[in-house]
Amino acid sequence: MHTVVQPSAAPLVSDSQPVARVAVAGATGFTGQELLRLLSRHPAVSLTAAMSSGQTAASSRRLPALARLWNGTVVPLSPETLVNEADIVFLALPDSAAAELAPALVDAGVRVIDLSGAFRLRDEAARAAWYPETHRMPAGVAYGLTERERGSVARAQLVANPGCYPTATLLALSPLVEAGLLLPNSDVIVDAKSGVSGAGRAPSDKVHFVTADENVNAYGVPLHRHVAEIDQELALLGAPVTATFTPHLLPLDQGELVSCYVTPARLTDQDELAGLYADAYVGERFVELTDRPPGVRDVRDTNICRISVHEDPRTGKLIVFGAIDNLWKGAASQAVQNLNLMLGLGEGEGIT
Amino acid sequence: MHTVVQPSAAPLVSDSQPVARVAVAGATGFTGQELLRLLSRHPAVSLTAAMSSGQTAASSRRLPALARLWNGTVVPLSPETLVNEADIVFLALPDSAAAELAPALVDAGVRVIDLSGAFRLRDEAARAAWYPETHRMPAGVAYGLTERERGSVARAQLVANPGCYPTATLLALSPLVEAGLLLPNSDVIVDAKSGVSGAGRAPSDKVHFVTADENVNAYGVPLHRHVAEIDQELALLGAPVTATFTPHLLPLDQGELVSCYVTPARLTDQDELAGLYADAYVGERFVELTDRPPGVRDVRDTNICRISVHEDPRTGKLIVFGAIDNLWKGAASQAVQNLNLMLGLGEGEGIT
Amino acid sequence: MHTVVQPSAAPLVSDSQPVARVAVAGATGFTGQELLRLLSRHPAVSLTAAMSSGQTAASSRRLPALARLWNGTVVPLSPETLVNEADIVFLALPDSAAAELAPALVDAGVRVIDLSGAFRLRDEAARAAWYPETHRMPAGVAYGLTERERGSVARAQLVANPGCYPTATLLALSPLVEAGLLLPNSDVIVDAKSGVSGAGRAPSDKVHFVTADENVNAYGVPLHRHVAEIDQELALLGAPVTATFTPHLLPLDQGELVSCYVTPARLTDQDELAGLYADAYVGERFVELTDRPPGVRDVRDTNICRISVHEDPRTGKLIVFGAIDNLWKGAASQAVQNLNLMLGLGEGEGIT
Amino acid sequence: MHTVVQPSAAPLVSDSQPVARVAVAGATGFTGQELLRLLSRHPAVSLTAAMSSGQTAASSRRLPALARLWNGTVVPLSPETLVNEADIVFLALPDSAAAELAPALVDAGVRVIDLSGAFRLRDEAARAAWYPETHRMPAGVAYGLTERERGSVARAQLVANPGCYPTATLLALSPLVEAGLLLPNSDVIVDAKSGVSGAGRAPSDKVHFVTADENVNAYGVPLHRHVAEIDQELALLGAPVTATFTPHLLPLDQGELVSCYVTPARLTDQDELAGLYADAYVGERFVELTDRPPGVRDVRDTNICRISVHEDPRTGKLIVFGAIDNLWKGAASQAVQNLNLMLGLGEGEGIT
Repeated sequence: MHTVVQPSAAPLVSDSQPVARVAVAGATGFTGQELLRLLSRHPAVSLTAAMSSGQTAASSRRLPALARLWNGTVVPLSPETLVNEADIVFLALPDSAAAELAPALVDAGVRVIDLSGAFRLRDEAARAAWYPETHRMPAGVAYGLTERERGSVARAQLVANPGCYPTATLLALSPLVEAGLLLPNSDVIVDAKSGVSGAGRAPSDKVHFVTADENVNAYGVPLHRHVAEIDQELALLGAPVTATFTPHLLPLDQGELVSCYVTPARLTDQDELAGLYADAYVGERFVELTDRPPGVRDVRDTNICRISVHEDPRTGKLIVFGAIDNLWKGAASQAVQNLNLMLGLGEGEGIT
Repeated sequence: MHTVVQPSAAPLVSDSQPVARVAVAGATGFTGQELLRLLSRHPAVSLTAAMSSGQTAASSRRLPALARLWNGTVVPLSPETLVNEADIVFLALPDSAAAELAPALVDAGVRVIDLSGAFRLRDEAARAAWYPETHRMPAGVAYGLTERERGSVARAQLVANPGCYPTATLLALSPLVEAGLLLPNSDVIVDAKSGVSGAGRAPSDKVHFVTADENVNAYGVPLHRHVAEIDQELALLGAPVTATFTPHLLPLDQGELVSCYVTPARLTDQDELAGLYADAYVGERFVELTDRPPGVRDVRDTNICRISVHEDPRTGKLIVFGAIDNLWKGAASQAVQNLNLMLGLGEGEGIT
Repeated sequence: MHTVVQPSAAPLVSDSQPVARVAVAGATGFTGQELLRLLSRHPAVSLTAAMSSGQTAASSRRLPALARLWNGTVVPLSPETLVNEADIVFLALPDSAAAELAPALVDAGVRVIDLSGAFRLRDEAARAAWYPETHRMPAGVAYGLTERERGSVARAQLVANPGCYPTATLLALSPLVEAGLLLPNSDVIVDAKSGVSGAGRAPSDKVHFVTADENVNAYGVPLHRHVAEIDQELALLGAPVTATFTPHLLPLDQGELVSCYVTPARLTDQDELAGLYADAYVGERFVELTDRPPGVRDVRDTNICRISVHEDPRTGKLIVFGAIDNLWKGAASQAVQNLNLMLGLGEGEGIT
Repeated sequence: MHTVVQPSAAPLVSDSQPVARVAVAGATGFTGQELLRLLSRHPAVSLTAAMSSGQTAASSRRLPALARLWNGTVVPLSPETLVNEADIVFLALPDSAAAELAPALVDAGVRVIDLSGAFRLRDEAARAAWYPETHRMPAGVAYGLTERERGSVARAQLVANPGCYPTATLLALSPLVEAGLLLPNSDVIVDAKSGVSGAGRAPSDKVHFVTADENVNAYGVPLHRHVAEIDQELALLGAPVTATFTPHLLPLDQGELVSCYVTPARLTDQDELAGLYADAYVGERFVELTDRPPGVRDVRDTNICRISVHEDPRTGKLIVFGAIDNLWKGAASQAVQNLNLMLGLGEGEGIT
């Protein structure tokens, strides 16, 4: 049945019939819920199953807000059902569960959009170091940073949806690489700030309201897995660097800002910077450039990444801000954007 | 009357009598209110006047929470009364008002603790560039970063209380300068995060609840005045640098975190770092060192600066966090700490 | 041009052409912005003008988030332009401005949806007491509580969109009136809780982040204008009462909960209550009944009112909760729901 | 050693020696931590032990903020040690643990301040219904609403510290009972709002930041245990009523507001109300009366209850607001206030 979908063909949308059957495994986390919300409203797909590896009964009590969108029930995870009832499966599971399930699905001919980290690193040695739970890499994997990988995503059997931090960081920095301002071994510092939904739904002292409220602190210092993704992709663009990356937890629910500091290869100025970013993102409907530092509130519940770039006139350093919604562009809506590419649909279907 | 106070003499505290009369000009802002709260409970001073340059009637309606501590009324600003009724005056005024009032008070023999930026820059050219409103620098000015300037503060006629960001940054970075790890022209990036009280009490769109809530964004990019203070003090310690400094506004009321990134002069390791910070702050009751990145909630309503230092093993870069309460150690309680030094009192009087 | 629109006729929607031209006066407040957001995405109307009575230049800087939806600019308020370019005008203005502008628009043949309080009270004496700014009541006014007033809204020349508190309260209580449980002179207490956006966009000490954060307090005690609306509509349903109404301000941006306490006319039980609410709202897509007290987060950014009803077994009192988004069902989306009725469109067009 | 303390004797405070040894069982919850903070700074007691029934190692990692106040370690719960090393023990344990431990401590001659609900209900039948875990009531129990029970608290062997909601409610309503305005069988509705710390430290979906943030909902509807306490104490004052009580959870960390609605026995007016509350609380340093509805932010980190009383001129109903800090006056600081009475100390020692 997966052969029905021909991603390189013309759009298959018709008025009466969805082009593809989709399912979500890991439906009760924050990302899984956003996926259900987006997919149940998507005009060109049919949501055939929502599964959870946890205690389904308890979990399904968490989904009242979705009843108005989608009347199904969250059921226990069943690979067989996924193979039988879906053309494309979204995995919003922990790394280890995704690492095990995804190759089997691909083997069975189901295309996969994986939102875990299990398949994001292209190099085997890097994977072994950062994601030892990933034992087998299927063929046909694309790294799903949509704006940079449209061709490979459209053809992929498995799309490794990027991490939220790499998404904002790579969209913020890639124009500098292309312009030759960020060179191999350039100095790159990414100070990232995320809302609490980024820490996941599992209750803990860290995400207790009284812990997170009126607070801010760094975490994952000094080695957060997302830095490997940032390094990898900047290298592929032509600038192998070793970035310093520090995420911070903020008292807000949803939203993410990266503040990137780069020592450029040569002097530049504000006009040149504005021009090269405008050129880099001309025609990109989901990237917005602003003169002033963007706030995450402006991109809440959108697939948009807002970027501003600034030169520090005293030091010549470049400061680039990237603001996204960590659950949307940083996870679920970018996954749907990739789905649209895989199906040959309009890229904004269901996410605007 | 200012001659009553002999800061170099032995502590004057007695059971029955305060050692000094103090007054606050600028009593209705966030910092002014914290000053009133601290000074009205201070065991060794008598709070003789609280003044406001604004509409006093309107302002005094804002102070109900203080009625239980201090029964006076906020009155219009009167330099004459300050001279007559106070030995030491705290100025919590805008830069321009402080720039005008402070020299006159010092001339009249009143000692001043100024919480504005008007007298923080020691160099005339720097002042002209960053604080053009400061026309005259009185004699006997000390920069009031207490842990670093005890001698000069004790003797000062005017203490320029540091900015909140420089306070956290300089306490976080000065041990690196002393250890020779932060050298002249080292690369220094300070990514700072502040609660909304740092933006002051004046209503505006920026501080509207609905603007700040669920949001984070940088401001003052790329040239915030506090960077001049950071550069100045690091230079005095022996490391003239041009720092990159970016403050961000966070959805919390009170609290400030600086995340500092330094390219060290040579390789070091976590043990050496821990040791040199422990040595630098041995015996300092208001500096706490932690293994893990500090959260601002842990220092709320305290005069404490919590610091952690980390080496990024991939890049060799140093990451130093400093967490303070912007209204306490970043403003009012450090001012009282300085008051205590000026009066020869125990440094923690009234702020522990 | 207003004659193009025939609200009693069959739906005019076609694939290629909007059925009506709409405009918004008061486009820069919170409600005005939500209106712009909804109307610019509405499939069957054309947004022809957005106006502001304030300083347009300053205001239009506040609308970057809308640029991606709607490329127009906010222009100064012009009644002539409204008459020429709109079939239906939304007024999101202060009471006094709406009281003046609305009758003139109706006279000129333009239909109006007014989101102020100016035309909500049907009785002249009541209006004189609570809304003295309303000098003239046009003909053809409907009170726009959609679920209760579909017929009159569809035919109206002017729809007085209900206040946010009355919306939630009346949807929560009207089934009790219809069931004879809430009688004339019954005891009715409404304890209401609202997010800060309900206080409007104008900066003030009350809406300063540091005032509202970590706080809760009642306001408008004991006489908030919305109580007159509640009394009026309960009386029209058959139960003239004098309700006690107390709104509270909460540290959240968007959302509103009313907790209503009613001494019922006779003993009832939980089963009867559940049944009569189910009957009252059968087929209503924008009213959801829940077993447990609803939270406002579940209805954020929706036109939904969630209701739960409970009997206190110790006292026999009834407790009814109604949760809405104050900017959506409490203002902008209910206005669009009314627009749809006025145009003979599907009620959920553009708000689901 | 417990015989050293003679609560009816004159204050035992001396400059050099604490009058009593105190211990805390249940030291790692929010209330336990506030108790440690207050007791470690208390000038007249010696904190000899802090115990936790949970995993001590894990728990003690939660207490870094206390290290600067108190250098001890949280150890596993040991009744023997409590008997040997403390004159007065604070229990901040779950109801069932307190129900078991408290009588044994009293038998061994240790006085107890219990912050659970186990001993708050005076009537055996009521206890059996609401607190079945309480099998044995020791002799010498006082209900610790300090302002109302000074005599019995001073003499008590066990003080049952009131619930947070009853504390605010009873302070708000008792003047009406004394004035004959609240009569037997009067209609009493208490709509209460609490910060998330009231829900305790245990991680759960309910207290997850993303659940509580931007939310408000009722809980414990319709039968929350605290209502039994409210009924009991109003009856003892002379007005047996059956109150309707509805608590709500708010997105703030600390603070509690009760909004009480009473149908008075006769008409009154604002002047009479103001006068009788002023009389009721003359000389009470921890009760503050305000003209306008109090906000919880004004009483944060204090032992103060702020009260305002209003007559609804339309209905004659009375609206009384009571604002407290749920962790202070609603728990830990009122417990210390009671300690002071038990020891014959000044009532404000250690809590002002």
